[in-house]
Amino acid sequence: MQDQSFPTPIVTTDAVVLTLEDGVLQLLTLRRAQPPFAGVAALPGGYIHTQEDHDAAGAITRILREKTGLGGFHLEQLASFSGPDRDPRGWSVSLAYMALVRRKDLGELAEGVALTPAYEARDLAFDHDDILATALRRLRDKGAWSNLPALLLPSEFTLPEIQNIYETVRGTKLDQSSFRRKLNELRLVEETGKTRQESAGRPAKLYRLASGAAYASRLFDRMI
Amino acid sequence: MQDQSFPTPIVTTDAVVLTLEDGVLQLLTLRRAQPPFAGVAALPGGYIHTQEDHDAAGAITRILREKTGLGGFHLEQLASFSGPDRDPRGWSVSLAYMALVRRKDLGELAEGVALTPAYEARDLAFDHDDILATALRRLRDKGAWSNLPALLLPSEFTLPEIQNIYETVRGTKLDQSSFRRKLNELRLVEETGKTRQESAGRPAKLYRLASGAAYASRLFDRMI
Repeated sequence: MQDQSFPTPIVTTDAVVLTLEDGVLQLLTLRRAQPPFAGVAALPGGYIHTQEDHDAAGAITRILREKTGLGGFHLEQLASFSGPDRDPRGWSVSLAYMALVRRKDLGELAEGVALTPAYEARDLAFDHDDILATALRRLRDKGAWSNLPALLLPSEFTLPEIQNIYETVRGTKLDQSSFRRKLNELRLVEETGKTRQESAGRPAKLYRLASGAAYASRLFDRMI
Repeated sequence: MQDQSFPTPIVTTDAVVLTLEDGVLQLLTLRRAQPPFAGVAALPGGYIHTQEDHDAAGAITRILREKTGLGGFHLEQLASFSGPDRDPRGWSVSLAYMALVRRKDLGELAEGVALTPAYEARDLAFDHDDILATALRRLRDKGAWSNLPALLLPSEFTLPEIQNIYETVRGTKLDQSSFRRKLNELRLVEETGKTRQESAGRPAKLYRLASGAAYASRLFDRMI
C-alpha cells in the first residue's frame, strides 16, 4: 500500500475524557490489560482500524464505545503527539482528542475504568500526562471565552452550578454579578420553569443551555 | 514493528505556509512532480522519516527546508485530517501545520514553488483545499485576539501596515483609533526610532514587535 522504504509510524488515537462529579473535574482512565504499561492507568485509546473507521474521530468514537460503553459526548481534536520514544513499540503518533461528558451519560463504570480528579492524575502510561496537561490547558484557555465548560453540566442546573464549572476549569473565582450579566448578554442559558429545593432557603431556579448555544463554541468574553 | 493484523494508515505531514506580499495574504504551493496528482499544486508535505525525524514538527521543518529552502518561521499544529478517500494510495492521516513566514525569509522561489492569494487558492491536490480553509479560519479566529497576524509583517513596519494585516486576516475594517489604543495597551509594538518616507506627506514612523511579544500568543482583545 505504501511506496516507502522506511518504517511507517504506529498510529493510535487517544482521548482525554473529562466529566464533572461532585463539583470536581474528573478524568476517565482505563487500567491497561496488555503490555506495554500493563496494569498502569492510561487514557482510553487504540489503533485505527482502516477497514472500518471512516476517520480518526470515528476511530476514537468506536474505541470509547467498545472500551467504556460511552456514547453521546462533545468531541474535539486536541493535538497530535509523536516521536520515537513515547511508545516502546516504535516511532508513534497519537491523534489526541478531548471528550466532555455529562456524568450521567457515563453510567456505571466498567471493570478497569476509573475516575480520578483531573488535576491530580499523574504517572499515566506513555506520554499521557502530557496529553492530559494539554487538554486541561485547552479547557482553561477556551473556558475563558467559550461555552465549552457548560457542556460538562447536567442538562438542568442552577446558576451557582454553572458559575462553579467556569471557576473549576479556570482555577479562579469569578465575580457573581459580572458572571450573571455575561450569561444574560450572551443568552447562554434559559430558564426551565422548574426549581430545586436546596438545603436551606428559597428553591433555586433550574436553567438549561439555550438551544442555539448547545455544542456551539460561541465567544464568551474573557473579561468575566 | 507493529502487532496489528490490519493495514496501518499512511502518515504524512503537510503545511499551510502563509506570507504577506504587497499587502495580500499569500499561500505557498508546490507543483507535484510525482503521482498522485502529478502537475497539480499542493501544500508542501511528505512522509515522516522515522529514522531521522524527532517528531512531526521536526518532519515538517525538514520537508520545508528540503522542498522550499525555507528556514525560520512561526510553526503551529493545525489539525489532523484522516480517512480512506483523501489519498488514492490508501487510508491516510495528514498531520497538518500552519507556518507564518516573513516574505523576505522565503527568498527567491525555487522551481515549482509559487505564491497564490490565499483566499483565491483552490483545486489543490488531495484534500488540501480543506486544510487551507481550516488554516484561514484559525488565523481569522485567533487574529481576533492574538499577536499571530503580526508575525507576517516584516521586522520593521508602519502603523497602517500592522492595521492592514489584522484587517486582512479578519476580513474586516478596524477603527483606527481603537486599534492604536489596543496596540498601546498591550505593548505589542515599540518604536524603532527610524522613519520611512511614504509617497507624500510626513515620513511614517517605523515600529517593530516588542521583544516580549514576539512569537508569544498574548491575548489580543477581540473587541478592537
